[in-house]
Amino acid sequence: MKNILLTIEYDGTSFFGWQRQPEKRTVQGELERVLSVVCRCPVQVNGTSRTDAGVHALGQRASFKGDFGIPTDRLVVAANNILAGGMNSIGKIGDLRIVSAEEVPEGFHARFDAKGKKYVYKILNCQETQIFSRNQYYQVRKSLNIEAMKQAALYIKGTHDFKCFQAAGGEEKKTTVRTIYDLQITEEKNELGKRTIFIEIKGDGFLYNMVRIITGTLVEVGSGKLPAEAVQDIVESGQRQKAGHTAPPQGLYLSKVYYKLEDLAGL
Amino acid sequence: MKNILLTIEYDGTSFFGWQRQPEKRTVQGELERVLSVVCRCPVQVNGTSRTDAGVHALGQRASFKGDFGIPTDRLVVAANNILAGGMNSIGKIGDLRIVSAEEVPEGFHARFDAKGKKYVYKILNCQETQIFSRNQYYQVRKSLNIEAMKQAALYIKGTHDFKCFQAAGGEEKKTTVRTIYDLQITEEKNELGKRTIFIEIKGDGFLYNMVRIITGTLVEVGSGKLPAEAVQDIVESGQRQKAGHTAPPQGLYLSKVYYKLEDLAGL
Repeated sequence: MKNILLTIEYDGTSFFGWQRQPEKRTVQGELERVLSVVCRCPVQVNGTSRTDAGVHALGQRASFKGDFGIPTDRLVVAANNILAGGMNSIGKIGDLRIVSAEEVPEGFHARFDAKGKKYVYKILNCQETQIFSRNQYYQVRKSLNIEAMKQAALYIKGTHDFKCFQAAGGEEKKTTVRTIYDLQITEEKNELGKRTIFIEIKGDGFLYNMVRIITGTLVEVGSGKLPAEAVQDIVESGQRQKAGHTAPPQGLYLSKVYYKLEDLAGL
Repeated sequence: MKNILLTIEYDGTSFFGWQRQPEKRTVQGELERVLSVVCRCPVQVNGTSRTDAGVHALGQRASFKGDFGIPTDRLVVAANNILAGGMNSIGKIGDLRIVSAEEVPEGFHARFDAKGKKYVYKILNCQETQIFSRNQYYQVRKSLNIEAMKQAALYIKGTHDFKCFQAAGGEEKKTTVRTIYDLQITEEKNELGKRTIFIEIKGDGFLYNMVRIITGTLVEVGSGKLPAEAVQDIVESGQRQKAGHTAPPQGLYLSKVYYKLEDLAGL
């Protein structure tokens, strides 16, 4: 029995999230449909992270098992061909793509063997409405104080009980303690000269909506609604209602999955 | 009777083009629906250019008349509010937006009074599939020789019979002679460091699919399939089949409409 680990990217705009649902277009559902055709057998895919509707991925991982003859590299080409709509028309590109695939030991599981993940949250920080970025950025109109946001980020780095950054509705977790290995905030201009702010966050695990609530809290610090120091109190309080709003899904990208602790911790 | 001239921008991805069609979401249809609500009377909108499905606009113009009380600036705010879905959720932005509105003389017509237009065509020129740009760029994988494209562009500038760059299926035109005042080809890196090529073309009028066929022809010159000099022969021949392919709609943007000849000709 082969066990294949995929690296995939997708634009989450037109998906009802990762998880298979009847009658709805989901990433897992699309992958299983296409891989079942290519492998000529029913395929069940296990993803590392169940991203929500509208959330994107640059480096989602997923594994699946089966007794199929097609070589791994041919499988990628064939599946991508179907995902891009058969590439019949010039310039046509799909919203889901397998970046690479590799054979892994039979006991390997894309989710349970993950040691951590990196997310990127993209903010567009300018006054005038930017319609062409609406599905890929969270547009914040008020000018953000990035230095205050960086200071607030220091209270989030490290090992803490992050109950304050957990939304209701996720699956039950044994503990709400997590380690954030890195939290970088950088800024750049986009091609139209508008200010973009990227929040990169690397951790051993994330609670439900944690990155989006952290982002909403940092945005409130950046806009002056919360002082940077308040974030220390918020974390210590463990109270969701003290933290900021949940930033919208379209700015969030699952960037990378780590299977080795030394890659995650940057040692 | 008031006559209002709008400047509008839209992401054409989810529209079946400009022109009103029963049961289909079109830009004209959406604008008329929303403006009729805001003006409290049935509104008919005349656009300058009937963009095809998937084609975008940065500076489309459209005019409409009526006896309505709402002040012009309030009208823009109210219409944009509805177009953005009521702005109920954080960070939500629509795919169609009124940029500005002004009152014009009663005899003014957005289309018939236009002296010319500028289009921009955006190409992404890199090997690896870029899914997040798929609705806003034409991705060409083979590295393009931009100098050859610039040389070919010289044969297109000026006043010519452009029958060779006209697709079948558009409305009947009296003449296929047009003046291209400017055709600039520039390159830049996008935020991921990928090469982008912009074709900016300014003329007194355009035949059906003309910019997309010019782009397809320039891409074939850039990829070495056609020599730059061949473009002179193509224009002189007047034969569509000698020109290049029709570049896909998603790279095309209606950038500006000119109502004064001196703005168009850059005098």
